[in-house]
Amino acid sequence: MKKTEVTLGIDIGGTNTKFGVVDRQGNCLSEGTMLTKANEDISLFLPRLYSNVEQSLAEIKNSIEIKGVGIGVPNGNFYEGTVEYPANLTGWKAITPLAELVRKNYQLPTALTNDANAAAIGEMKFGAAQNMKNFIVITLGTGLGSGIVVNGELVYGADGFAGELGHVIIEKNGRLGAFGRRGILESYASATGIKRTVYELLADMTEDSELRSISYNDLSANMISEAALRGDKIAIAAFEYTGKILGEQLANTVAHLSPEAIILFGGLTHAGNYLFEPTKRHMELNNVPIFRNKVKIIPSGLLDKNVAVLGASALIWNEIDKVIAK
Amino acid sequence: MKKTEVTLGIDIGGTNTKFGVVDRQGNCLSEGTMLTKANEDISLFLPRLYSNVEQSLAEIKNSIEIKGVGIGVPNGNFYEGTVEYPANLTGWKAITPLAELVRKNYQLPTALTNDANAAAIGEMKFGAAQNMKNFIVITLGTGLGSGIVVNGELVYGADGFAGELGHVIIEKNGRLGAFGRRGILESYASATGIKRTVYELLADMTEDSELRSISYNDLSANMISEAALRGDKIAIAAFEYTGKILGEQLANTVAHLSPEAIILFGGLTHAGNYLFEPTKRHMELNNVPIFRNKVKIIPSGLLDKNVAVLGASALIWNEIDKVIAK
Repeated sequence: MKKTEVTLGIDIGGTNTKFGVVDRQGNCLSEGTMLTKANEDISLFLPRLYSNVEQSLAEIKNSIEIKGVGIGVPNGNFYEGTVEYPANLTGWKAITPLAELVRKNYQLPTALTNDANAAAIGEMKFGAAQNMKNFIVITLGTGLGSGIVVNGELVYGADGFAGELGHVIIEKNGRLGAFGRRGILESYASATGIKRTVYELLADMTEDSELRSISYNDLSANMISEAALRGDKIAIAAFEYTGKILGEQLANTVAHLSPEAIILFGGLTHAGNYLFEPTKRHMELNNVPIFRNKVKIIPSGLLDKNVAVLGASALIWNEIDKVIAK
Repeated sequence: MKKTEVTLGIDIGGTNTKFGVVDRQGNCLSEGTMLTKANEDISLFLPRLYSNVEQSLAEIKNSIEIKGVGIGVPNGNFYEGTVEYPANLTGWKAITPLAELVRKNYQLPTALTNDANAAAIGEMKFGAAQNMKNFIVITLGTGLGSGIVVNGELVYGADGFAGELGHVIIEKNGRLGAFGRRGILESYASATGIKRTVYELLADMTEDSELRSISYNDLSANMISEAALRGDKIAIAAFEYTGKILGEQLANTVAHLSPEAIILFGGLTHAGNYLFEPTKRHMELNNVPIFRNKVKIIPSGLLDKNVAVLGASALIWNEIDKVIAK
């Protein structure tokens, strides 16, 4: 029997590490997860990962041929294959040559990048951007990540770290955010950002709101989405404000890159049109005339799938395909 | 005798149209210029252009072989070869298929884009970016133009018009600018922008200044540069402010693209460090930590050369080389 060609996708997060093998069509043939244990040394983490991957593949290992390994990891440098100063992987050294270590173990082509870049390649290979050459993926989770594709290639920039839209300053002297920088986009447009907005609005507005009975620590972005769906005025105003801030910056981003589409992804997008409509409206209000009514704002094409694993897997499929094309 | 291979570069501006032939090494073997006559129909403009080009090539035409035609033109759409709604070419139709018309006349490969994009390709082929794959050119003239190169290719975006950094909004409710949009970068960082800044500072500050005796209409960016070089406090403060605004936006642009260098070009750069130093300083102050002390801000490598013609010529050399590479 001919073995199914797959790649192994690994997504290392601050809390969980997910993995799975994915075929050329984007079917996830296995999935597994383990605790990352962020304060653990890489020399303990990797054997644990290899062992977990092996167990998860036990049933299918005779029917698959693994062609390469793709890794999504915070502060992953695609060019160097290194993980550099990852704030949330406290047990790792300043610079970890992760791709090299994994390559040596599996004796397979290995590539890594951050999770948002991996998600962008996932959308290009298997998702909403399959026929697009110029698009941007924005992940709206705890923070805001982004992956930019230009001329059909991911933008890594000169140093391997391009695409940090969450850290763009959109409001001089605005809210405090990562690295002590004020007014960065992710302090507004993210699950954390909309919580902060709700709290500003609870102070500023006088309307009743179900959110008035929830403490800051207990409040989640999902609660805000659900409140909005029930017509809660504060929650709706919070999405309006989030969409305004995000849309305004997206117009500036469009002026740089003129993408065909901007794909929104992550927890906040569960609110659907409460997020998409104001984002699109404020982007258009702020667009340069030449870019108006050209750029789509659309949801991920990988919803309900294991995006983290699919993205990491797509990363190395993409590299393998480039080699074949040469 | 073997003929020298050249391309014909044409730069169409609102006032003047420049042209010349350029060899593979970036030597301009002929140069000419004519009035554009912006309200003239394209059916009159083109025969006049062809005739002027022919005259300028009379002496060398037996020693050259023209391989293609590159055109820099406002609102040039690289993909379509069209010029679309050019505000300063009033006699032209809404959409002019300029590349097709010129291709038919010369029976040669023809490409067009806007002047800032052409300048970026000029820097890549002949100037300061010859070994760079990721860089940005900013032209600081009457307005602010930009050309972005990623992975060694110019970024045209989905529609052919990417790279409009002059139109990025950097100050909500800021100065009025093109298309009635407030707070756009070019209303601050450009020859016109620094004039406006000088007038703000003349109102705000109390220091003596040689600029107090010059009317708004008489004031030029060169006068401000010269005053700064003589130690004029208002002029120096105007460059500091210009560099601040430009540097702040460049940090946001770096967060998108992480370029190796940003090349500044155009009249304002004659002020040298009065412009470069505050621009670099404010970019670094606003950079995300991971991008700090990585991105060079450098002058054009095409100073004192006919950049407009070199850029247009480089555009088509670049396309010819791509075809050869295939």
